[in-house]
Amino acid sequence: MLSYLFSDNNEKPLYEQLYQYIRSDILSGEIPANCHLPSKRSLAKQLSISVITVENAYSQLMAEGYIYSQPRKGFYASNLNLDKDSGLSRALTNSFNKKENETNNKKAPAQPCSFFADFTSNATDPSTFPFSTWAKINRGILSEDQKRLMTNSPSNGMHELRLSIANHLKEFRGFNANPENIIIGAGTETIYSILIQLLGYNKIYATENPGYEKIYLLMKSNNVKTVRIKIDDSGIIPELLYKKDVDVVHTTPSHHFPTGITMPIKRRYELLNWANDSQRNQSRYIIEDDYDSEFRLSGLPIPSLFSIDKNERVIYTNTFTKSLASTIRISYMVLPDHLMNEYFEKFSFYSCPVSTFEQLTLARFMSEGHYEKHINRMRTASRRKRDLLLKSIKSGPLADISEISEEQSGLHFLINLKLSISDDEFIEKCLEKNIKITAVSERSFMVNYSSVPLERIEEAVNILSSIAVNK
Amino acid sequence: MLSYLFSDNNEKPLYEQLYQYIRSDILSGEIPANCHLPSKRSLAKQLSISVITVENAYSQLMAEGYIYSQPRKGFYASNLNLDKDSGLSRALTNSFNKKENETNNKKAPAQPCSFFADFTSNATDPSTFPFSTWAKINRGILSEDQKRLMTNSPSNGMHELRLSIANHLKEFRGFNANPENIIIGAGTETIYSILIQLLGYNKIYATENPGYEKIYLLMKSNNVKTVRIKIDDSGIIPELLYKKDVDVVHTTPSHHFPTGITMPIKRRYELLNWANDSQRNQSRYIIEDDYDSEFRLSGLPIPSLFSIDKNERVIYTNTFTKSLASTIRISYMVLPDHLMNEYFEKFSFYSCPVSTFEQLTLARFMSEGHYEKHINRMRTASRRKRDLLLKSIKSGPLADISEISEEQSGLHFLINLKLSISDDEFIEKCLEKNIKITAVSERSFMVNYSSVPLERIEEAVNILSSIAVNK
Repeated sequence: MLSYLFSDNNEKPLYEQLYQYIRSDILSGEIPANCHLPSKRSLAKQLSISVITVENAYSQLMAEGYIYSQPRKGFYASNLNLDKDSGLSRALTNSFNKKENETNNKKAPAQPCSFFADFTSNATDPSTFPFSTWAKINRGILSEDQKRLMTNSPSNGMHELRLSIANHLKEFRGFNANPENIIIGAGTETIYSILIQLLGYNKIYATENPGYEKIYLLMKSNNVKTVRIKIDDSGIIPELLYKKDVDVVHTTPSHHFPTGITMPIKRRYELLNWANDSQRNQSRYIIEDDYDSEFRLSGLPIPSLFSIDKNERVIYTNTFTKSLASTIRISYMVLPDHLMNEYFEKFSFYSCPVSTFEQLTLARFMSEGHYEKHINRMRTASRRKRDLLLKSIKSGPLADISEISEEQSGLHFLINLKLSISDDEFIEKCLEKNIKITAVSERSFMVNYSSVPLERIEEAVNILSSIAVNK
Repeated sequence: MLSYLFSDNNEKPLYEQLYQYIRSDILSGEIPANCHLPSKRSLAKQLSISVITVENAYSQLMAEGYIYSQPRKGFYASNLNLDKDSGLSRALTNSFNKKENETNNKKAPAQPCSFFADFTSNATDPSTFPFSTWAKINRGILSEDQKRLMTNSPSNGMHELRLSIANHLKEFRGFNANPENIIIGAGTETIYSILIQLLGYNKIYATENPGYEKIYLLMKSNNVKTVRIKIDDSGIIPELLYKKDVDVVHTTPSHHFPTGITMPIKRRYELLNWANDSQRNQSRYIIEDDYDSEFRLSGLPIPSLFSIDKNERVIYTNTFTKSLASTIRISYMVLPDHLMNEYFEKFSFYSCPVSTFEQLTLARFMSEGHYEKHINRMRTASRRKRDLLLKSIKSGPLADISEISEEQSGLHFLINLKLSISDDEFIEKCLEKNIKITAVSERSFMVNYSSVPLERIEEAVNILSSIAVNK
């Protein structure tokens, strides 16, 4: 928690004082890089100032690059990585110190703010990345495949990687994708930019509500009409798609984000029927986002929409940013056959945004079987975490006041808590104990355990219990 | 040159026969991966068939991914990289052979089609890439910087890389760029997508005519109104920008593509004045594309528009795809201060499209001085090629009928030839001798020597001379 003292007789407005405190702490490293900052509301409460004041300070810090925001997560300190001896660092620090001295205030030092357990983060645990295998493959490619590395990739990516992905889809998702129909992108941003250019700016796009907010923001940012469509217990509601005259819908049928719902087969066919309305002039499409299907922990795999679609209405998308590392920006989509002609016509002048170096490394990582092993290791680690979480919850005081759902389907589950305090109070009290958790709906909290180390799980559950039960 | 025989009594249409011939040659490797195919017109002429027939065959091949096109360059065989023993390869070959046998035609084998010298290619010579240094830095980062590699990059890129770029701009271009204002992208595509989202879809964008066609296509593809603006001897004409009510103009003032013109300082100020029209409601911007300024061979470096702009009207862009390798997709832009607030508001939810692995490798490559050395090596190699080209031209029969221009400014120059045959005939005859060259305007040919090996230059000039002079 940040804690600062403000001076009333300071001629600078409050927001500027706050801006300077936080900037100073970021420059000095007291607030470390990528540290999560308190929400505007909670910082305002804590410092007894208005939310607007915090908002103005954050907005100024953001404009100058000292902090950044992430959707659904809040604000973080930027990684300025200032070399203490560099001129830039000195210049910034000097200019700050000067202002600081002018204000002549006392300041309580900020406390460090890394969480004991963060149940909201999608980050992969850095220790799980297979560095030595990756390095070995990299080395091999840099010495043996120099000519290939210097050959421009086709706009949809290198054939080696597309072939490896097709094989992976066959093995893990049980469907045949033509490697030629696979388009490699550098994360969701580039994939959706291409998709919108391909399907058209005059279409109505829909995302799930609640859903993966980034997709909604991306579509808005790409200047297309975007609507949010409610979900029920089976996922997105097709009637609403008809009603809102939607052309293209983004959905996460395998594992709805954030509720974890798996779309039942009946709803899947209803959705395909919606897409296949032959009476209509404009074609409809479903973007199937299969973002974490690799992590399903038990139960039969559910066939993808793409594989049961007989009318080429489904565009399948998936990513390596969840299953490998969020910092290697490789994702892909599989287009239906009839769109390929248009794709090549429109985009053959595009360069694939992923470098050949990383495409080849990943392709070989997959074709040599390392990716399969990696996923198995990640699943085993996830399962152990989940099992320990469930065991700790069920054997402790939380057992009587909680209900778990969607625990089979990936890297997070939902816990419904009968609390005697409000959800907001519960979340605040957890934060005070260095545990971060959010509510998806009333009384329903998301437990995303991918970034929480196994050895902290029992203690984290104990802390949650003491807050939930004792008050 | 491809050469095929067609059968009149074949029930398949001509275009399908042609499609099958070419497909077969690509699958068998007779047409190697990334081989440049003849233009539609020249293949039609050569095979005595209509251009429409070739167009249909190429379009089918493109739809199925066997060939791809590049703007201003034409068509290339895809790199299918088929393992001859793989099921996919067998399936494709079998299905093809079956059709092939049905057609029952004789076929003359296609000739290999790599050029002795290609004066149209922008490709960097693969042998110039510093593989061993790159590999060494890579190895170091993979073993020492694991935590950093797994830390998400801010949306505008990692600070290390932005700092290295700022230092480079200071040293090579003589201006100060705030590292926080630098936005890292994965090639032109992602940079312009961000720019359009930032500046707005309701603006009128302009590109140079003639100019770098890819920018025009990108803007069109991103659904903004785009106009082409003529250039004169000083570059883009400001009066036309007023006349067409342009809001944002893309320009290459250091080295106009393709004419090589360097915009004189007077025109630069006229352009800045156009951008700084305070009477206007909507702000105007200049996108300064400094794509090959590192390669200027002699003469004083020209100050960038960005550095002489006092009113924050210029967005500076540059790329490593020309100076390092076209297959490492890293480019960047520098935004003026007043746009940073909006940038962070709109794009902090974006992930930077370049992986941390490549950002860190390039940052260290630059900060350890390797990039500077690399550029110096490339410039020396370029200068030697250019000098040998000029010497060969001036000491041979071309001397009397040619005029050279723009030879100081980078990787290509223009040669004006007094020919007794038409430009098209000259180009065709060069192709017959395995030399590729294009005209930029009447009698004016582009000599892009970056991909032509030094040891072929004298012979290439001899061939050009014999065609230009003897006929």
